[in-house]
Amino acid sequence: MDAVNLRDRAVAVESLYVYEKVGKLNDHALRVVNVADRTLDLHVHEDSDEMFYVIEGSFQLETGAGLTPVGAGELVIVPKGTPHRPVVTSLCRFLLIERDGTLNKDNSGEQFEE
Amino acid sequence: MDAVNLRDRAVAVESLYVYEKVGKLNDHALRVVNVADRTLDLHVHEDSDEMFYVIEGSFQLETGAGLTPVGAGELVIVPKGTPHRPVVTSLCRFLLIERDGTLNKDNSGEQFEE
Repeated sequence: MDAVNLRDRAVAVESLYVYEKVGKLNDHALRVVNVADRTLDLHVHEDSDEMFYVIEGSFQLETGAGLTPVGAGELVIVPKGTPHRPVVTSLCRFLLIERDGTLNKDNSGEQFEE
Repeated sequence: MDAVNLRDRAVAVESLYVYEKVGKLNDHALRVVNVADRTLDLHVHEDSDEMFYVIEGSFQLETGAGLTPVGAGELVIVPKGTPHRPVVTSLCRFLLIERDGTLNKDNSGEQFEE
């Protein structure tokens, strides 16, 4: 059994916007990613909720309800079918969990690789 | 949309061993729990992997492979079908994620409530 240190694993991914798989929980994937100064287009995941946990930094989650600030040690869960996008203006290290197969280049940036 | 501050939510649960649901990710439940000086019996979840994330403190996960130390900011995922138990000797605040319906009084202590 291996423990996963989230900050260490995120820091070890030297490039921004590179999604690194750090675990698998049933049919869900856990990935860390470092993001800075990026806002994706609003998008929808039809088949999965999505959890954003902030390891370090902060961001705002934009939905139809407005902007929700999310800081380090906090998580937010976007229900499937909800238009959303993360708004990131400075370095933020994330843990993402969603059903494997949910993320792709269209909803996660050109750097996404399975 | 509401952000969930894991430490704040765990601290707000004043009693030890009380599982508080803080979110739902597809068919999975997120719960925080505060544990001190407790070791459950070895047990198996046949239908779900289980994620233990340490918000504060530390514990050891016991499996057939021995003891795995897990500290704050770290997570460990127990594959379904794996005999395991958390060994906790001082206050540890956890986030647990597993398929809803996985936990019960037999595998989580008498204080567990759905």
